[in-house]
Amino acid sequence: MTARVNGKEPWQLTATEISPYLRKGELKVEDYVKSLLSRIHQRDSAVRAWVFFSPSLILQRAKELDDLPLDQRGPLFGLPVAVKDVILTKDMPTQYNSRMFQTEEASGVDANCVMSLRQSGALIFGKTSTTEFATSKQGNWHQNLTANARDPKRTPGGSSSGSAAAVADCQVPFALGTQTGGSIVRPASFNGCYGFKPTWGAISREGLAQWSVTLDTCGFFTRSIDDLVVLADAFQIKDDDPVPSKSFSLQGAKIGFCKTPNWPQAGEGTRGAMSKAQDILTKHGATVEEFDLPEDFDKVLGWHAAVMAGEGRTSFLGQYLTHKDLMHETIVGHVDNVENVSRKAQLQAYDGCARLRPILDEIASKYDAVITPSVIDEAPVGLENTGDMVSRSPRHRSPRHRSPRHRSPRHTATLCPVC
Amino acid sequence: MTARVNGKEPWQLTATEISPYLRKGELKVEDYVKSLLSRIHQRDSAVRAWVFFSPSLILQRAKELDDLPLDQRGPLFGLPVAVKDVILTKDMPTQYNSRMFQTEEASGVDANCVMSLRQSGALIFGKTSTTEFATSKQGNWHQNLTANARDPKRTPGGSSSGSAAAVADCQVPFALGTQTGGSIVRPASFNGCYGFKPTWGAISREGLAQWSVTLDTCGFFTRSIDDLVVLADAFQIKDDDPVPSKSFSLQGAKIGFCKTPNWPQAGEGTRGAMSKAQDILTKHGATVEEFDLPEDFDKVLGWHAAVMAGEGRTSFLGQYLTHKDLMHETIVGHVDNVENVSRKAQLQAYDGCARLRPILDEIASKYDAVITPSVIDEAPVGLENTGDMVSRSPRHRSPRHRSPRHRSPRHTATLCPVC
Repeated sequence: MTARVNGKEPWQLTATEISPYLRKGELKVEDYVKSLLSRIHQRDSAVRAWVFFSPSLILQRAKELDDLPLDQRGPLFGLPVAVKDVILTKDMPTQYNSRMFQTEEASGVDANCVMSLRQSGALIFGKTSTTEFATSKQGNWHQNLTANARDPKRTPGGSSSGSAAAVADCQVPFALGTQTGGSIVRPASFNGCYGFKPTWGAISREGLAQWSVTLDTCGFFTRSIDDLVVLADAFQIKDDDPVPSKSFSLQGAKIGFCKTPNWPQAGEGTRGAMSKAQDILTKHGATVEEFDLPEDFDKVLGWHAAVMAGEGRTSFLGQYLTHKDLMHETIVGHVDNVENVSRKAQLQAYDGCARLRPILDEIASKYDAVITPSVIDEAPVGLENTGDMVSRSPRHRSPRHRSPRHRSPRHTATLCPVC
Repeated sequence: MTARVNGKEPWQLTATEISPYLRKGELKVEDYVKSLLSRIHQRDSAVRAWVFFSPSLILQRAKELDDLPLDQRGPLFGLPVAVKDVILTKDMPTQYNSRMFQTEEASGVDANCVMSLRQSGALIFGKTSTTEFATSKQGNWHQNLTANARDPKRTPGGSSSGSAAAVADCQVPFALGTQTGGSIVRPASFNGCYGFKPTWGAISREGLAQWSVTLDTCGFFTRSIDDLVVLADAFQIKDDDPVPSKSFSLQGAKIGFCKTPNWPQAGEGTRGAMSKAQDILTKHGATVEEFDLPEDFDKVLGWHAAVMAGEGRTSFLGQYLTHKDLMHETIVGHVDNVENVSRKAQLQAYDGCARLRPILDEIASKYDAVITPSVIDEAPVGLENTGDMVSRSPRHRSPRHRSPRHRSPRHTATLCPVC
């Protein structure tokens, strides 16, 4: 039984809500993590978000943090972060959902992003489930497949499965993920929490599993927009212009709605959610303008596949030579280049995407924000398949709602039905 | 005293020369490494290429390899590789020439490229000196600065200082390096060995220090072209068209000579070496055609600087937050963005380089090969400064010769005056 904060259990609060109590010492980090541990104890058999998790290590770290004088407490003081299990952690194993890397030994090395979090006062809480090497395949080691935080029969999405589920389920306020296709935005959408995939290169990738140097991006999950800002600030993510202040109003704002060339595949859930988002934005005084992308953008999905396959050929060579019999056949196929992606096709993909980048910037510059779907529909039933980032053939159609990728700030208040 | 092979000490031979003896068991790996150890014992006080080096670990690995049946011996069987000390090795420490990472503990994790080498039968020999985090600065930890293998008063170049010096000095046949500016081609040129900086993404970067995701490239050093091919094959580096066979003749070949916009800074050594290369090529029946790059290529060096600074801002954040007082002020300056590189300038650099990539390919497609200088002149005297990849202002001028980046195969036979 831990102390309640503002009439709630500590695990129910967002990072922004609980942070002042921790920093001022009004709530001990030890008591906060005990509250989270009780939440996990209650929920883990249903959600199964964790692949490494040591209560004794967590409590030890909590006590070390509690010993810090108030004036040495960093911006993330005492805030627990779940780490996707393709990111190195010096005091915990990193297993990549690969039978080749099954171990109880700590990695000995911190990824650069983990180093930044620790130094800002965060508590590295444990490692969360992922697909094998964060590719599109479920992997061959985890026996206890992670479930969606909202419905145990549905997938949480992937590859950042456990990170999204743990945050959405109020087991931790923060989690790190990575994205090469839709591995942050899809699980965030499926579980109903926020996923932030920052621009490429905004967070160091040193110490992360590599699939595609061109695409791999480190990002994170939270349960509030304010919490996204806290982590973005900790990683010093900034643009040339300052971020609009909290008093930013939608009155008179111009919002672009980009359906992308994949809109015909959107299910009823996605269509309904986007329509609802438009209504909310309009009601708050914004103008929502639909726009189409120029024809060349039809090729992006093919280029994306060529880059993933071409770069996957070299990225997985070390594992392939070590134990290809323990790898998913799709990953083995990347190294064997079964798709026969030529170097020429890979270069055409690089050049094609590079040509479109400033064109997309030019289009986006006409709007205060752009909204676009993050998945084709709500989380499908079943845990074996984490869903597609988008299907190139229209074969996934399931009804019900899901969340748009960019929500209006006003919309966020209604997000979390759990806590 | 170890057995002589072909009338030479084993340490004198290239990998290609010694490999058949090792694979057939006619020379024990143990005897080969003892020969290398004797060479290092004799030379280390002058060259100081190594920052971690354990004869007992080397001998243990050698014995394990000698126990392998002949039919299980991989393509790199028993061939020692030096590893630049910004690349993770599970059984050796990784210290980045940073006081922050001074340790005797093994990293616990192998970089993907090290994994590939081990699985191909290579013997990971030790860790070689680098500048701090492989940036342009010498670093603040190494007390024994590495010397050029040819002249102890001169720099070996950087940042892959020890890797180039160890190979050129016949202490190992192979070494791994990394390049963000000229960190492979410069030390190879300065020390008089071969440096191969493959195309971006050809070798996995997982487990390597990160400075610039756009530029960082893993590559290697050898003392013969045949040895370059052995390593390129081990890393499965291939293009759409097969590599020309060994019987490739220069007769009738068309060679482009690209002076680049930085040619005015070339010293007498560089001018002489390029002129000599032209003579040799012409004498063997090739036509050498000088060509200029279109005007926009003048901007590449500025874009390169913008990308390094902009990406350095995020790459070094973890170390900065951990112990910026222990970092070189130039690296701290990257994180603080003292050069005020705007996001807009960084994007212009990306777009500018992307626009020129196919133009350069188009130009290069007219030739069988292109030669261009790899440094502005020979290695300068002094060990504190590892030399510039190229100076943006013409302030480096020193006489004498140096080697062109791409040599004709015939020229290689005369390369190594040491062994």
